Amino acid sequence: MTPILDARRVAIIGATADTTKLGSRPQEFMIRHGYAGSIVPINPRRSEINGLRAFPSLRAVGEPVDLALVLTPANQALDALEDGIAAGTRAFTFFAAGFAEQDEAGAVLQQRIIARAREAGVAILGPNCVGAMNARTRLCATINSVGLVMAMQPGPFSFVSQSGAIGGYWLDKVLKAGLGFARWITSGNEADITMADCIAHLAEDGDTEVIGLYLEALRDPVALRAALRLAQARGKPVLALRSGRSTAGAEAVQSHTAAIAGSNEVTAAFLAQYGVIEVASVNEMVDAAKLLLWQPRGVVRAPAIVSVSGGAGALLTDAAASIGAEIRQPDAQTQTAIADALPSFGKPRLPLDLTGAVGTDPTLLGKVLGPLAASGLYDAALIFIGLMHDTAPVLSKAITDYAATASRPPIVIWMSAPDGAIEALRQARIPLFDDIVDMARALDRANRVAAALERPLSADREVAPRHTGAARALSEAGAHAFLAGDITVSLPDEVLIRDPAEVPAATERLGFPLALKLQSPAMLHKTEHGAVLLGVDSVDAALDGARRLLDIARRLDIPTEGVLFQRMVPHREELILGLRADPQLGPLLMVGRGGVDAEFERDVAIRFLPVSIDEIEHALRNLTMAHRLTGSRGRESFDTAALSRAIAGLCALYESRPEILEIEINPLALVPPGDLVALDMVVHVAGGQADD
Amino acid sequence: MTPILDARRVAIIGATADTTKLGSRPQEFMIRHGYAGSIVPINPRRSEINGLRAFPSLRAVGEPVDLALVLTPANQALDALEDGIAAGTRAFTFFAAGFAEQDEAGAVLQQRIIARAREAGVAILGPNCVGAMNARTRLCATINSVGLVMAMQPGPFSFVSQSGAIGGYWLDKVLKAGLGFARWITSGNEADITMADCIAHLAEDGDTEVIGLYLEALRDPVALRAALRLAQARGKPVLALRSGRSTAGAEAVQSHTAAIAGSNEVTAAFLAQYGVIEVASVNEMVDAAKLLLWQPRGVVRAPAIVSVSGGAGALLTDAAASIGAEIRQPDAQTQTAIADALPSFGKPRLPLDLTGAVGTDPTLLGKVLGPLAASGLYDAALIFIGLMHDTAPVLSKAITDYAATASRPPIVIWMSAPDGAIEALRQARIPLFDDIVDMARALDRANRVAAALERPLSADREVAPRHTGAARALSEAGAHAFLAGDITVSLPDEVLIRDPAEVPAATERLGFPLALKLQSPAMLHKTEHGAVLLGVDSVDAALDGARRLLDIARRLDIPTEGVLFQRMVPHREELILGLRADPQLGPLLMVGRGGVDAEFERDVAIRFLPVSIDEIEHALRNLTMAHRLTGSRGRESFDTAALSRAIAGLCALYESRPEILEIEINPLALVPPGDLVALDMVVHVAGGQADD
Repeated sequence: MTPILDARRVAIIGATADTTKLGSRPQEFMIRHGYAGSIVPINPRRSEINGLRAFPSLRAVGEPVDLALVLTPANQALDALEDGIAAGTRAFTFFAAGFAEQDEAGAVLQQRIIARAREAGVAILGPNCVGAMNARTRLCATINSVGLVMAMQPGPFSFVSQSGAIGGYWLDKVLKAGLGFARWITSGNEADITMADCIAHLAEDGDTEVIGLYLEALRDPVALRAALRLAQARGKPVLALRSGRSTAGAEAVQSHTAAIAGSNEVTAAFLAQYGVIEVASVNEMVDAAKLLLWQPRGVVRAPAIVSVSGGAGALLTDAAASIGAEIRQPDAQTQTAIADALPSFGKPRLPLDLTGAVGTDPTLLGKVLGPLAASGLYDAALIFIGLMHDTAPVLSKAITDYAATASRPPIVIWMSAPDGAIEALRQARIPLFDDIVDMARALDRANRVAAALERPLSADREVAPRHTGAARALSEAGAHAFLAGDITVSLPDEVLIRDPAEVPAATERLGFPLALKLQSPAMLHKTEHGAVLLGVDSVDAALDGARRLLDIARRLDIPTEGVLFQRMVPHREELILGLRADPQLGPLLMVGRGGVDAEFERDVAIRFLPVSIDEIEHALRNLTMAHRLTGSRGRESFDTAALSRAIAGLCALYESRPEILEIEINPLALVPPGDLVALDMVVHVAGGQADD
Repeated sequence: MTPILDARRVAIIGATADTTKLGSRPQEFMIRHGYAGSIVPINPRRSEINGLRAFPSLRAVGEPVDLALVLTPANQALDALEDGIAAGTRAFTFFAAGFAEQDEAGAVLQQRIIARAREAGVAILGPNCVGAMNARTRLCATINSVGLVMAMQPGPFSFVSQSGAIGGYWLDKVLKAGLGFARWITSGNEADITMADCIAHLAEDGDTEVIGLYLEALRDPVALRAALRLAQARGKPVLALRSGRSTAGAEAVQSHTAAIAGSNEVTAAFLAQYGVIEVASVNEMVDAAKLLLWQPRGVVRAPAIVSVSGGAGALLTDAAASIGAEIRQPDAQTQTAIADALPSFGKPRLPLDLTGAVGTDPTLLGKVLGPLAASGLYDAALIFIGLMHDTAPVLSKAITDYAATASRPPIVIWMSAPDGAIEALRQARIPLFDDIVDMARALDRANRVAAALERPLSADREVAPRHTGAARALSEAGAHAFLAGDITVSLPDEVLIRDPAEVPAATERLGFPLALKLQSPAMLHKTEHGAVLLGVDSVDAALDGARRLLDIARRLDIPTEGVLFQRMVPHREELILGLRADPQLGPLLMVGRGGVDAEFERDVAIRFLPVSIDEIEHALRNLTMAHRLTGSRGRESFDTAALSRAIAGLCALYESRPEILEIEINPLALVPPGDLVALDMVVHVAGGQADD
């Protein structure tokens, strides 16, 4: 990214003075916004463009440029690249569409460009992007129309976008909010420079304090995880707006940038695990950034709440409670101090209602903020104001005066604030919201960011990827044999019989009741075929059952290994556990509510590998069904540490044996106090014939 | 409400020319905004106020006024009332605080005023309110500071607010959104005129199309239900913003207006049952109203989605899918028509990405809207635009041209729209949003409104209220005897034994396995005392068990009726069912997931009585656990109609016997196909000694 974002000499291939053409924009924008470097228009048919000398080619310039902005169509991309390489250009931004996102021919062209660029050691941003900007040098190497309307303002917020247009909307909103920006990158098809490269660059960038992302697809999870770890290590929050969460949205994404959006559940889990906080819109990202940029870090747990309206105070209290805040009442001394400031009918409790008296005496606000802060009971102050245009200057001053001395500036919700108040609070870097719910959403996200940054980094071992070729399913008995020695959960007592004659010996050894299961790698869904018998409680029933199951195999004409006799295991709860490799994001653990209702009452946690025992225990304790594990209604609590160790053992098994593609255990029975018994299991391994 | 809202002659008691005093405001506002009636200032120390003749008292005016605005302090309220009654005044608005919301003395004063007003047959708004407005006559009978900043605009949206300040914020936002307002009422302490009265008035008001509410507490549920039924019958949506949803918020509400906010779950159920759609903020209410006022009614199920940005199109698709919309692809003919309009690299599918080409050719938008509408596949059009200031006039015109011919005007999300576009769309009454998520929330609410208005009105029998005096708990056996003959669910086979000697006969009659339960009205929570034994499977065990349970009663020294022997009932699922009277809102049915986990995995529906069999079945089918009732994974489906009939029978029992205060059955076992068996039951009846 460095030659692109820190370019001091930029060439524009396809530059033009015709303002109806996009090719005119980078030069226009850079001049308008005061780019500190030099601009070299390239156009074989012009010797001068808008006052700058134009050259027919990069080679003709005579000295190398850092960055070439290629605005010509896709079919001229290779020519521009060769010209630039020959002239010593270090990096290129390709703006045109018509590459991998378009069709097969475009994908081939894109591949040729990248191969040539790698060979020559030059960097490529795009293609199919709208460029990048650096507010420090006022480099506006973009065609996005935000350049037409924005008022350039450097600041600490940076953005990487897989959509050019959304990059523009983001920048417009960020600048209007007075936050300023540091770097702005649209990554397009990410043929060379990826989202991960951009995040890693911004993590180390001295001007960037908070990183925003617009995501359609996660590529290269190993690099992405490393970049996110770096951002976390540098204490930089990462906020993400993501599309493709619905099936229809994922199809739209694929059509848009040729990228495969992964499953929503899996992608959300990946981002959460590596500290990315998701938002639902550009405005919500800007709202969260106000708090992240203008407030000290740290979770707000017990805010003071002050309102010019009792009704709004109640709404604000509800909103704060809804995000887990505690509403703490002032102590006696603080109550006295507040009561002294309020009119006689005021009440010194939270939410603090300044009453109608604040309409005529706006200094009331300042008089109560001091005692609240001095009490030491509160870790933030939430102030609600609405309208009050006539007294706005006094109210604004009370807020900014308080902010100047407070350890944390107040957070202000001011409905329909007058422009003067908006400007005064912005100058003082005091977060301002127009509505209570917007503030609550933002505060919830800022709290999540703080919690994520406080969390220890997860281990960064690389887990062997799983191949995507042929897979072979093992029968349950086959899986048990295959995993024997390594498996860290219990298996039922079991005997595989091949002939009904073996039944009496098996029942004698196992006792009753029994589960009988037909074993065939060609039949994974045994229940649907009636190939599982439960509660078998006599030798006769076992004999009869074994014969019936073997008959099923004969009738279906499938190979069979026999019938697995398992002693049934009394248990209280059932989990589902899966270890598999997501096609985009790699090996993961899935664990949650098991049994036949697992799919209807979905309650699972997903963690990418490697995952620590602590992370597994944290995941278990945050399931909806956690109350079934932690003891309630007089039932014994499970030893969740022991459960987590056993699950971590399965993860280690999966990590250490890359020939295992997938393990799914359901139900995984929980036997108090901390035993896990795999009551059914499907294992897929690499190679052999295809799956049934 | 009529003399208040339609007043043609208004007196202002406590009128003043001093603009630092609130008493100056009603006269100032009515003159400023052009009130069509006459204004009579009352002030014993002035003969003229701001050009109007002032009188020392209402009696001195010589002719009666319709409405007296009483701006003097609480301690002068009775004098003003007597003066007005003597002068023939029909209605009063009391603005001052210092009544029931303040203290006991204030409550007494409020009670005296209401008693006198009822005696004289005059209406009272407030006290502790900020008045009311009627946009038709420009009656601004308020002191709220919104009067200082608003630009009066009549329209079809009306509001009733239990907070004066929030009334002001609402009006400011509604007027800024260009919606206009019809009536605006702040109800204060609701000592006489209540929220229900206001809703009933607005339901019949010819200028009002949509009713908004700010709620802190629901009073008089019978009148409120009647008013909401009337609004539904007149086809008028009711939107509500409510505070007091959290414990801390409910305390704030009580402090604010002396009102008791009910349980959040119960209040939300009441509002939902009678068709009120809740919103989370004033802005969200305004957003929903844009759709309700400017779009034809009807649920939007399959919108066309058109975007100037592929990324935003994907986000919009996700948002639409998240509220249950179907993303339907165009048919072949429509695809051809769209492809003709788009550049060669465009794709004729939804979300329809107009591509970068729309930047230079904004007429593209109009060219695709026609074929989409003509296809007949879509019931709405969602259009996303961002920035595009240079082409905004062409884009706006394409939208308004389309709206002029479409059966439903399009819904537009335009991020950072230029002022000209905002104004053009507003003139054409086209809903405009700045962000995708705001639109999706509003559309979801408009869809819910449409669904609520289509639903049949529930029955309007009045259910006998439950007294709040002493209650007496019945033992399970006592409850069975008390309800015998009326109960519509099954009971287990059971025998009550008083002496261990009766055990053999009981077990002979019932068989095994058995549940044994100590019976005492003094012990409702039997499990905690070890007074329930399950799975008793022999005569010896039953004898032993009976002795142990009787010992418990002796040890605790509580009266006992004996030990209830019940044959255990095999069953697949468990419900919880409650019939009780909410202290604010009256008799209700609660039904949902039962068993020991009911409190941890809360999944219940609440319906106020009367409730129909269809409503009960709808409630059952919308539980999270519904999949357990409706058959899945090869399990037999329950007959939910039969279940609902049995539950409706219990409701009828509860309605017909007002001496029953509460019935709680948990677990209520489900036995396929449609039998309900009450495995445990607590009944409270009126009278007798207090509860344990």
